[in-house]
Amino acid sequence: MTEARGPAKKAPMREVLAQAAFQLFLERGFEQTTVDDIVARAGVGRRSFFRYFPSKEDAVFPDHESCLADMTAFLDAADGGDPVEAVCDAARIVLRMYATNPEFSVQRYRLTQEVPGLRTYELSVVRRYERTMAGYLRGRYADYEDGSLRAEVIAAAVVAAHNNALRSWLRSGGDGDAEAAVDHALELVRNSWGSGAADGEAAAGGGDDEVVVMVVSKRAPMWRVVQRVESALGQD
Amino acid sequence: MTEARGPAKKAPMREVLAQAAFQLFLERGFEQTTVDDIVARAGVGRRSFFRYFPSKEDAVFPDHESCLADMTAFLDAADGGDPVEAVCDAARIVLRMYATNPEFSVQRYRLTQEVPGLRTYELSVVRRYERTMAGYLRGRYADYEDGSLRAEVIAAAVVAAHNNALRSWLRSGGDGDAEAAVDHALELVRNSWGSGAADGEAAAGGGDDEVVVMVVSKRAPMWRVVQRVESALGQD
Repeated sequence: MTEARGPAKKAPMREVLAQAAFQLFLERGFEQTTVDDIVARAGVGRRSFFRYFPSKEDAVFPDHESCLADMTAFLDAADGGDPVEAVCDAARIVLRMYATNPEFSVQRYRLTQEVPGLRTYELSVVRRYERTMAGYLRGRYADYEDGSLRAEVIAAAVVAAHNNALRSWLRSGGDGDAEAAVDHALELVRNSWGSGAADGEAAAGGGDDEVVVMVVSKRAPMWRVVQRVESALGQD
Repeated sequence: MTEARGPAKKAPMREVLAQAAFQLFLERGFEQTTVDDIVARAGVGRRSFFRYFPSKEDAVFPDHESCLADMTAFLDAADGGDPVEAVCDAARIVLRMYATNPEFSVQRYRLTQEVPGLRTYELSVVRRYERTMAGYLRGRYADYEDGSLRAEVIAAAVVAAHNNALRSWLRSGGDGDAEAAVDHALELVRNSWGSGAADGEAAAGGGDDEVVVMVVSKRAPMWRVVQRVESALGQD
């Protein structure tokens, strides 16, 4: 144990290595930077790097492992309530990781766009978040017909909505309120799949005198009801 | 041009190489098989392999490029009608590629489960299908508020539904009707996002005398109507 000199006294070794790596990736490019370059910049031995990061790619996304652990813990603790709300809240944990450090997030986004290997790595990470959410939903929908299908579709929809808003924010250079953008995007999923508790702005009585009266069987499946409502409202 | 001897007279070179590669992957394992092993088995020169496949991984999925091209052509030609139906039909193109050769598809699924590099490769392929569908939907929803968001969420949902059914079929060893399973899975997406043309089995008048009467504004957004219907039906 000869490392932990200089900057390591101030920041944890893992962070020092991640920062050294990221500076070098920006300066020289990802492919052109070796692990030897990184440990030289950080002032530690080569084996220290691999103690913290399995690969160079992992050093670009140093917070995903702990974020995934946070998400898992959050969902483990989320027992009651609307399952779709729970996974939307879980997605917000990821967003906050990005939003906490906009400059780093934007620089990393640009780097990732330029390096195919990093995009592939990121796909794997995103897939792990999606599987975590789907696993939670599968448990909540265990008694549903097609519960596993529903769980996977909703998890994919939540991830897609989250990433749509996150990407817009990253592309804009980190301008504006990322959390509000993600909230707005997730609303599309909640409105399609969530239990949708009615709030104060109910649609009827909105000063619009054109109405539709519908009669539907209480035992009709939800999708059939939606079809008939859309049909009646001329949205098909 | 010294290749194209022996088996190449019967099957195209690309297919001969893919078959030789796959046999070796099953016999020796993916990591243990080199490109030299593959070209020796196929009876061709080393450069022939790289003329057809950028990497060993590509030889495991020899049909995805043409399938992606088929999907793109299909969506380019699909102008009118329900956009969600169009991307569901596009997903069925992928399914048919798997269902045409169940034995190969099942063996490849098992191989992919064992090799992390192949799973990552497959994620990238799936992502390309998803982007193709999302691109089509983005065009169709160009005039919608949040059209891009809606496009990405629906594409992700279609891919998730397709893959849920495909995976079940592959896990079962290719038993049963894969196309019917995927149709059933896609129904969940179509019922949530499609235009939902009513068919002969309308819910009302189904012999169930318990009914709900709803009055909603014609100008109410669809999601709000759904909220109220779910609330009235006690599904929240």
